[in-house]
Amino acid sequence: MPLLVQKYGGTSVADADRIRAVADHVARTRRTGADVVVVVSAMGKTTDDLVHLAFEVSRTQPTREVDMLLSAGERISMSLVCMALADLGVEATSYTGSQAGIVTDAAHTRAKILDIRADRLRDTLAGGGVPVVAGFQGMSLERNVTTLGRGGSDTTAVALAAALGADACEIYTDVSGVFSADPRIVPEARKLNRVSYEEMLEIAASGGRVVALRSAEFARNHSVPLHVRSSFTWEPGTWIVEEDAQMEAALVTAVTHDVSEAKVTVAGVPDRPGLAARLFRALSDHDVNVDMIVQNASLHGTTDISFTVPGDDLEVGADVCRGLLPELGASSVSTDASVARVSLVGAGMKTHPGVTALTFETLARCGINIEMISTSSIRISCMVRSEAVEVAVRALHEAFDLG
Amino acid sequence: MPLLVQKYGGTSVADADRIRAVADHVARTRRTGADVVVVVSAMGKTTDDLVHLAFEVSRTQPTREVDMLLSAGERISMSLVCMALADLGVEATSYTGSQAGIVTDAAHTRAKILDIRADRLRDTLAGGGVPVVAGFQGMSLERNVTTLGRGGSDTTAVALAAALGADACEIYTDVSGVFSADPRIVPEARKLNRVSYEEMLEIAASGGRVVALRSAEFARNHSVPLHVRSSFTWEPGTWIVEEDAQMEAALVTAVTHDVSEAKVTVAGVPDRPGLAARLFRALSDHDVNVDMIVQNASLHGTTDISFTVPGDDLEVGADVCRGLLPELGASSVSTDASVARVSLVGAGMKTHPGVTALTFETLARCGINIEMISTSSIRISCMVRSEAVEVAVRALHEAFDLG
Repeated sequence: MPLLVQKYGGTSVADADRIRAVADHVARTRRTGADVVVVVSAMGKTTDDLVHLAFEVSRTQPTREVDMLLSAGERISMSLVCMALADLGVEATSYTGSQAGIVTDAAHTRAKILDIRADRLRDTLAGGGVPVVAGFQGMSLERNVTTLGRGGSDTTAVALAAALGADACEIYTDVSGVFSADPRIVPEARKLNRVSYEEMLEIAASGGRVVALRSAEFARNHSVPLHVRSSFTWEPGTWIVEEDAQMEAALVTAVTHDVSEAKVTVAGVPDRPGLAARLFRALSDHDVNVDMIVQNASLHGTTDISFTVPGDDLEVGADVCRGLLPELGASSVSTDASVARVSLVGAGMKTHPGVTALTFETLARCGINIEMISTSSIRISCMVRSEAVEVAVRALHEAFDLG
Repeated sequence: MPLLVQKYGGTSVADADRIRAVADHVARTRRTGADVVVVVSAMGKTTDDLVHLAFEVSRTQPTREVDMLLSAGERISMSLVCMALADLGVEATSYTGSQAGIVTDAAHTRAKILDIRADRLRDTLAGGGVPVVAGFQGMSLERNVTTLGRGGSDTTAVALAAALGADACEIYTDVSGVFSADPRIVPEARKLNRVSYEEMLEIAASGGRVVALRSAEFARNHSVPLHVRSSFTWEPGTWIVEEDAQMEAALVTAVTHDVSEAKVTVAGVPDRPGLAARLFRALSDHDVNVDMIVQNASLHGTTDISFTVPGDDLEVGADVCRGLLPELGASSVSTDASVARVSLVGAGMKTHPGVTALTFETLARCGINIEMISTSSIRISCMVRSEAVEVAVRALHEAFDLG
């Protein structure tokens, strides 16, 4: 009997009607003969509301208590899903992260899963029931409630699928799959039937927010087939699987973009070995996630170092740089939040060197200046002015014939 | 060092301001040198909102899932209280019922506490911290989340006070203590400084809703001194303690009333032994809580049996009776929701037989008909028309000079 893990995100369980629709789909899946483990997020904006409440109450917010607070959201949605399943005659039992045996490290608000002791879930399955598990949460070895950070419910689902040896992990969301570009910008964007784990990782990392980076990584490492699909249309979505011969034929799979990045430039850095290392070590120590880095040619013995960070990290990142100016002997720090990244992702790039040239030609033809460039073996990213990003996405989508 | 358990009800933690006020009071109590264990209810109407949500989603509502759902409320309030305490420099750690070691039976939605394994709370206290515990909830031996039913947070607080050997259990609420009558009806009602456990039990059972009956019973059985007081004025409230000589001097302590009861009459019951037993066994089997029972003198070999039930049980109670009519050979069932109970409670009644007479005289003088009567050694209750109850309460409060 096949075993499916079905994960339902916040929009999929946003209200009573949606919860009943989810229960109906789980019941239908059961009737096909499959065993099902359900993983749920908190309803709609519940987690945001709880975060808001915490800010109303407290300036300090110890992270252990933040986790205790936020984990209430899934507890609500999972018990409601079980009730709706009971109405349909499906025996379902809800499990908190702790009850589901999701053991994490003690890094509150961004815990990592150490182990899954899924005995209770296996017992429920063996008894013909449907375990409904709280996503996003676990318990540390010290028996404190932890949460897994952004995209944590996807991580829970993929980790459970791996631990239980599930045949697939279905990620239900409010879009119908992974697209060749954001359909809001490119109306002729195409839903992709299959992408490889590697492509999905690059798509997720470069702005395609359908699946969280971390869960795609976990799925790849444990060879869990992912199926990203809509809980509104229930139509087949995008499979994320091992790369195969058929995929390699595609030069470029998707154009992605990300407007949430910002640029920091440290000017007048003496051109001496070790200074850049000092700078990026300090940023790392402050949990600032640096993505692209550009260091221009040295002029009069000094150089300008630019790098991009998530917009949320801009302030901290700039502060860290300013604090290091004396030590580095650099002259100034400037920031720029009006940048955006456009990326091309495709497993075929590995063997087709022409992609870079066509990318540059396309952007040049649109009069778009490229401020920074970074590449991987299956991705090219260009930093452009944020007001140019939509034109860039549309032009590249057309140039590579992705529609 | 004294140890206090402080329980804060839903109105005491209803919003961010109230939560900060609670944290401030806990911090002040700590500065007096006392150790504190905090027990919290869910914020304001949270539990009602969750119940409403369950009704929106499901007709069946398995009780295990109801408990999982409802237990989310305290999780929210307790973590917010800990955050507010952290702002004040007080180290606080939240514990769910399960984490606090509150072991219950498996009777979901109305579980009974079997054991308290408070090692984690003791460790937190030993480390100078304040444990903040979710009221109303526990965990069964099968490791399922349970809730303790109405007034469950008070039960949690008293049970923890007993298990930890606390010097007192403070119940913070939105009234400033136990009064000689409901101040909304009797403006000159007096706050009682001390009442005995027995009096409190009778007051709670007869409509004085300040402390839940069950927790007063638990407090008596474990000799836990209770202090009922206001989290809005923070003034000293009412102590509930062992009866002492001073109290016995008071003939009557309080007048209480209850408009939530209803009356059922089964008419034309053959006057044969065993029929009443059959009737009340059937009601008990349907969880209908019968309070007063009156059986009038037999006329022509048949009798009328009247009894009172909580208003919520009226429909079920009447249905049970109707179903038994053929078996009992009785003629009809009638119901009356327009009744109310007025009671006098006082430890002094035990040794002063005149209370009954003065009660009847007072009600007669007001032209109030007594429909049913029940008494205990320290209580007299009279069932009257509900529209007469306020007049009755005021008259009795004055007649016994309670102001």
